[in-house]
Order: sequence, then structure tokens, then C-alpha cells
Amino acid sequence: MRVCFLLKVSPEKVKEYKTRHAQIWPEMLDALSQSGWRNYSIFLRPDGLLVGYLEADDFEKCRAAMKNHPVNARWQAEMSGFFEPMPGGADDNMFPLDEVFHLD
Amino acid sequence: MRVCFLLKVSPEKVKEYKTRHAQIWPEMLDALSQSGWRNYSIFLRPDGLLVGYLEADDFEKCRAAMKNHPVNARWQAEMSGFFEPMPGGADDNMFPLDEVFHLD
Repeated sequence: MRVCFLLKVSPEKVKEYKTRHAQIWPEMLDALSQSGWRNYSIFLRPDGLLVGYLEADDFEKCRAAMKNHPVNARWQAEMSGFFEPMPGGADDNMFPLDEVFHLD
Repeated sequence: MRVCFLLKVSPEKVKEYKTRHAQIWPEMLDALSQSGWRNYSIFLRPDGLLVGYLEADDFEKCRAAMKNHPVNARWQAEMSGFFEPMPGGADDNMFPLDEVFHLD
């Protein structure tokens, strides 16, 4: 399955968010892969609107696996201050979108 | 390369937009494939914010190839009334985002 979600980075923290992701911890990449996140990209609009895209066999399982991963807890503790609340978002502020079209 | 762009569908036209894309013309799918658009998905937020994701060898070439495709001209003529202007968007209203992270 393909998953797309939105997040909102505070505009004044966009530059630092990019820097952090250019230096993401190798153990965080391993944790994502082990949790089943594949072909995962993050895209950013200059004002901080963030789009995540990934492929997974079962996203709810992947999301839960990451949520319970100790490396992720440390990463999210560093990241939580970067985000603004997203109207309609989940408690992790992620707002999943519906897929309305796909072409292989 | 991976490409992500935004578009804005008028909120009152979201339902019809979904219906049209569930019945997209086979020749439009062929035109996209021939123009090099791969693994192309469209995601939609209920208010009409649209996210497109695709993979391509050279997106500018793919975009130009579609722009010049006669099937696309017919499709876009039907679709143009669905979109609202996107601040900062191109003349086709597409707003491309920067990729800031990727994990295979």
C-alpha cells in the first residue's frame, strides 16, 4: 500500500529541519527499514507544509512498530518542537490523505 | 528522480474529481506511461488539497511530453475547471516541493 501524510513544520524551523534530516541518525534509518517503511520520502514547501510518502505492506503495523521503537522515541523527542498542530491530525500530528488515483 | 507536487481542487468539486479519476480514460493512462510517468499516485485531503507523487528519469521532459500530448489536451480541458489557483504555482497550477529526505 502507498501512504501519503501531511505535517506542518513551523516556518521559522524549516531550515533547521532540513539540516537535521540531512544528518539523520543511521540507527533511525535502520529502525524505519526494520519497521517496514519503504521508499519513504519527505517533501517540504518553503512555508513548512510537509508531505510524507511511503510504501508499506500494512501501514498501521509499521506506524505502531516505529512508535514502540526506542530509537524513534529519542528522535521524536528532538523533533517534536519542530511541528505545529495540524487541524484534523492524529495525536502525532500526521494527517493521512486518501489515494484517489494510481498508475504503476 | 522522485517528484511531489501540490494542486488545489475546489472543495465543492472534490467528489466529482474522485469520480472522474475512478473512470480515467485508458488512453490517458497510456499517454502518462509513454511520457515516462511511473508509480504515479494522487492523494486528496477532504478540502481539496491534492498531492501528486511520481517517479521519472527526467521530470521536466516527462512534463513537457505530457503537455504536448493530444490526449492530455482533451483531459486537461475537462479538468481545468476543477482547480483553484495555487499561490506560487506554475501556469498549470502545479507547485513542486523539495525533497528533504529519502530512504529506499
